[in-house]
Amino acid sequence: MHEEFMKHAMEEAKKAEAIGEVPIGAIIVHDGKIIARGHNRRETTQNPLTHAEIMAIGEASEKIGSWRLEDCTLYVTLEPCVMCSGAIVMSRIPHVVYGAEDPKGGTVDSLMNLLGEPRFNHRATVTGGVLEKECSSMLTLFFKKLREARKRRADN
Amino acid sequence: MHEEFMKHAMEEAKKAEAIGEVPIGAIIVHDGKIIARGHNRRETTQNPLTHAEIMAIGEASEKIGSWRLEDCTLYVTLEPCVMCSGAIVMSRIPHVVYGAEDPKGGTVDSLMNLLGEPRFNHRATVTGGVLEKECSSMLTLFFKKLREARKRRADN
Repeated sequence: MHEEFMKHAMEEAKKAEAIGEVPIGAIIVHDGKIIARGHNRRETTQNPLTHAEIMAIGEASEKIGSWRLEDCTLYVTLEPCVMCSGAIVMSRIPHVVYGAEDPKGGTVDSLMNLLGEPRFNHRATVTGGVLEKECSSMLTLFFKKLREARKRRADN
Repeated sequence: MHEEFMKHAMEEAKKAEAIGEVPIGAIIVHDGKIIARGHNRRETTQNPLTHAEIMAIGEASEKIGSWRLEDCTLYVTLEPCVMCSGAIVMSRIPHVVYGAEDPKGGTVDSLMNLLGEPRFNHRATVTGGVLEKECSSMLTLFFKKLREARKRRADN
């Protein structure tokens, strides 16, 4: 089941890639249904808040009509950063499923565990590594293409 | 100078209070000028993202036309939470000034120091306690009134 939903998050990531953004996608599931989707749009919008998870959380709260996303699961292709981990805490999402680890910026497992912090007033359970290779290779390939394009421009 | 700008953040907090929200306000200063304002609107919008700092960061990036708020100072009446600290890291704001400490949820000094975390790709300097009493008593008074109103309703 996690893999099926992660494929939908990957579809979102592909939407980001199609507009030249780092391919990261997220969906939010409530009662077995996808109620919100988001993809990274930071460069397009030039707004630092437009990470995939933040977009999805905003849409989900609108759909549910509450800032408390209590019965929701967030699926995201990359381990959440500090801002998105914080938004998960603030919106009381109880379960987070992610694809690839982010050793440089992930704050769920890699650098720290903000979703298990006992001093916060909310904690979330985390399932990592779902379709990890697929999520990870999307990112690796994106950055490889970017480097090649830059090299081509420098050579010309 | 910090106190003058904090007074403007307090004006924002009063806007939150006027609509029944917990009085927290923020402004962002760039080249000595206020370019963005925000106040807590979580209950009004039922959107968990609508903290004062997030509103101000969104507006500032729109004004500057960049997700990098590199020459900006954020003034906020209450020590930032984990989501807002994360948004400060993601938007590269170099300097944060806050009023009252938040011993239960603050992630700049109280519970942890996310803005000084050496493993993140950005750190911010922090000045705390500016107009601390004024910012703090706004919150204390708000919660006192709220308790009294609840008691009155329970008594009737």
